Amino acid sequence: MRVYLAGPDVFLPDAIAIGRRKKELCAYYGFEGLFPFDNEVDAAAGGTPVDTLIYRANAAMIRRADCGIFNLTPFRGPSADVGTVFELGMLIGLGKPAFAYTNNPLDLLDRVRGLGTTEFAHGVWRDSNRMSVENFNNTDNLMIDAALRDQGHPIIRHAAPGDRLFDDLGGFEKCLSFAAETLTAAAAR
Amino acid sequence: MRVYLAGPDVFLPDAIAIGRRKKELCAYYGFEGLFPFDNEVDAAAGGTPVDTLIYRANAAMIRRADCGIFNLTPFRGPSADVGTVFELGMLIGLGKPAFAYTNNPLDLLDRVRGLGTTEFAHGVWRDSNRMSVENFNNTDNLMIDAALRDQGHPIIRHAAPGDRLFDDLGGFEKCLSFAAETLTAAAAR
Repeated sequence: MRVYLAGPDVFLPDAIAIGRRKKELCAYYGFEGLFPFDNEVDAAAGGTPVDTLIYRANAAMIRRADCGIFNLTPFRGPSADVGTVFELGMLIGLGKPAFAYTNNPLDLLDRVRGLGTTEFAHGVWRDSNRMSVENFNNTDNLMIDAALRDQGHPIIRHAAPGDRLFDDLGGFEKCLSFAAETLTAAAAR
Repeated sequence: MRVYLAGPDVFLPDAIAIGRRKKELCAYYGFEGLFPFDNEVDAAAGGTPVDTLIYRANAAMIRRADCGIFNLTPFRGPSADVGTVFELGMLIGLGKPAFAYTNNPLDLLDRVRGLGTTEFAHGVWRDSNRMSVENFNNTDNLMIDAALRDQGHPIIRHAAPGDRLFDDLGGFEKCLSFAAETLTAAAAR
């Protein structure tokens, strides 16, 4: 069972080491982990830009995967990393099982309110640009939370220490364990 | 030709009016616009949560669409709205043509540097969490920019006035016009 490992982990200074640890944990739970950093991109490939080569390699990996585990920890704002979310959408579009965790256990609304410029009027929260803020007790935008819940895989909320937001693997391991159980049960049916 | 209209527009105080204007512009360019706010969600539907009903209605609309136009204007941070990006990933996973615009013409790197806490060392930009910042002259994460460029539809950058960031439709109309030309040319081949 090949599992695509998506997350802002690829931006960490020790991304390669984190990818290796995630793949070891995958093996322990019976999965083959596919970490995007694996992609050997040949910068000299016929003049194709490096970012296009990385995109194509990751998209091919997502198509090859049997399922995915997504790190939805908020990244540079109250929501998840958009690269990770793009990949989640792709996997859902392809009809494959997706599992997810976040290292911040709060609701989206609490994080946006934490920015300090929201107001509540006529039953709706609005941010400083007067854009409404969803109030469904979700970790992020409803398209993300509901897509996962609709597959029977609600997002796992893990409270990582503040200084370990991006490299604590406790939430990842809970998610991996849940994925292994869920997929084993599905295969047995 | 049915075009799914994704964007943080749904969070505007006058979302319904904006949706109507977008659909009128679509009709002018020969498209049928599908705006997510159209979804009549029955809150009393058998105890299913409202957010799940909205998700299912939007996902069904994406599956019914022939193509999509995505508003990738930065939202609550340096990147696009994650709901919009999820839907973009889904449409790409489904193999349909996607077009996109942003009302902020800057590169992602410039916006992250604008946060004031980045540093450059060993050839890499890093933010205040030491997470690397992509430097490919893209408007956003490479998965987004490269996916669109790979379809031959680079993201259209439109400089909207600061106070019209979310309701200026100039970028949308440029994108719509480009989509109409591109799809007409493709159909003629």
